[in-house]
Amino acid sequence: MAMATKMLLLLAAVALLVASSGAWETNIRMPASVATTTAMDEAVAPLIHALRPMLGSGGQLGSRAGVACDSWRLGVEAHNVRDWKTVPASCESYVGHYMLGGHYRRDSKLVIDEAISYVDSLKLAGNGKEVWVFDVDETTLSNLPYYATHGFGATPYNWMSFQEYARQASAPALPETKRLFDKLLSVGIKPVILTGRREVQRTATVTNLRRQGFSGWMTVMLKPAEFKGSAVTFKSGERQKLVDAGYVIVGNIGDQWSDILGTPEGARTFKLPDPMYYIG
Amino acid sequence: MAMATKMLLLLAAVALLVASSGAWETNIRMPASVATTTAMDEAVAPLIHALRPMLGSGGQLGSRAGVACDSWRLGVEAHNVRDWKTVPASCESYVGHYMLGGHYRRDSKLVIDEAISYVDSLKLAGNGKEVWVFDVDETTLSNLPYYATHGFGATPYNWMSFQEYARQASAPALPETKRLFDKLLSVGIKPVILTGRREVQRTATVTNLRRQGFSGWMTVMLKPAEFKGSAVTFKSGERQKLVDAGYVIVGNIGDQWSDILGTPEGARTFKLPDPMYYIG
Repeated sequence: MAMATKMLLLLAAVALLVASSGAWETNIRMPASVATTTAMDEAVAPLIHALRPMLGSGGQLGSRAGVACDSWRLGVEAHNVRDWKTVPASCESYVGHYMLGGHYRRDSKLVIDEAISYVDSLKLAGNGKEVWVFDVDETTLSNLPYYATHGFGATPYNWMSFQEYARQASAPALPETKRLFDKLLSVGIKPVILTGRREVQRTATVTNLRRQGFSGWMTVMLKPAEFKGSAVTFKSGERQKLVDAGYVIVGNIGDQWSDILGTPEGARTFKLPDPMYYIG
Repeated sequence: MAMATKMLLLLAAVALLVASSGAWETNIRMPASVATTTAMDEAVAPLIHALRPMLGSGGQLGSRAGVACDSWRLGVEAHNVRDWKTVPASCESYVGHYMLGGHYRRDSKLVIDEAISYVDSLKLAGNGKEVWVFDVDETTLSNLPYYATHGFGATPYNWMSFQEYARQASAPALPETKRLFDKLLSVGIKPVILTGRREVQRTATVTNLRRQGFSGWMTVMLKPAEFKGSAVTFKSGERQKLVDAGYVIVGNIGDQWSDILGTPEGARTFKLPDPMYYIG
């Protein structure tokens, strides 16, 4: 047991280390107008508890009652859990710890590593017709600064409140996605931004993307004000227009299954993690 | 830190509890010819280490080198990691602990809970034309007794060796899937077994299913000896035959993405976890 205790303490130390400051965490905690941070800011940052990512907030490992939060998250990512309105109340802390700790970033990194391996494996035509579709929210940009103060998805979505946040154009980039974006530009695949955000949000969205270092895209496609259909209908329709115009969608990445389902999906799709909300 | 230490010790205790004996573990460890188990058998059972399910065997949480095994597993389940031949060598222990500990069962339970909720939400025609497609390996039957002695997928697939195991018809049922199977029978949805196993394995497969309490299916569809195409081609082709014959596929469940991709997929699909092998 002494050895096990030592290893458990080591785990705690590693987890605390991962939870410590970094560019991403700094970015998340800071309002857009503040450009620097101090040691004191770091000291008051939320402590990422070593146990929560595995157990879920209720500590209900093996219990028959309640929700096993890690199983729920896996269910979301594998598209077994669908049409959910909010994160289960008992999983708010779990999702918060997942998002703010190293886990979300590590899971995102693996997805992008796979995407970059795929890009490296392609025999490109290099004819300027090869494109890659990117979603915006929780794909190129992260709304964690918003969701961190709105229950990490455990409270019902508030359209007005989120629009106000989005208008500030202050969302940080998801660093992993930025790495893929830059890789594609370097090999001549044109990024296409395709988002369920409405046309009225075009300026704020483009401003936010540019502020975060995204540029060189072929086009930014937003949902027309009058569009009434589902996300899958909108996005697959827009992808069809690209194909009809002679483009080849070599890849497609988003955080929602509705980003990557629906013909034409693209030659290969990638699902980034998002346990905070579901768009059907 | 004292509190954290206490909680970590609690975690260890809970994990050890989960790893302790039960019908499932007993079933997994026992050869087919042994009908009972003893306290001594339990005592020599492999110890499931409390840390491994989270960290992966290399303990490379947050490390830039190597594979983050939990992220890799998520990547597999979300279909970001494709066409892999074996479990990464550094993740063999991780996958073993995942499969033999409570984690795999917990993840499977959530999938089946979702499936049963879906069944309860259906307005059934009750005309005898409603069917549900089940895969066999790692869906109705578990080959853990085989994989536990073959590196949990970290060693290359050995067709001959696996066939020899399958011929014994000794694989335990996945208890969660059995629960769904029985639920469907109770509401008049007919189970259809659709497997990539070959026709030559029909007798062993049916014997194994019956031994494990499965019965009442409409048909068992196996791959003809001469079939050369992919799993998706075979399975979607067989599902098309069902639809052409007037059946409505209300659900479809498997452990591989190739079980549930390809038109007609079925009205709703469910992906059970399987970090041990990939069938494209």
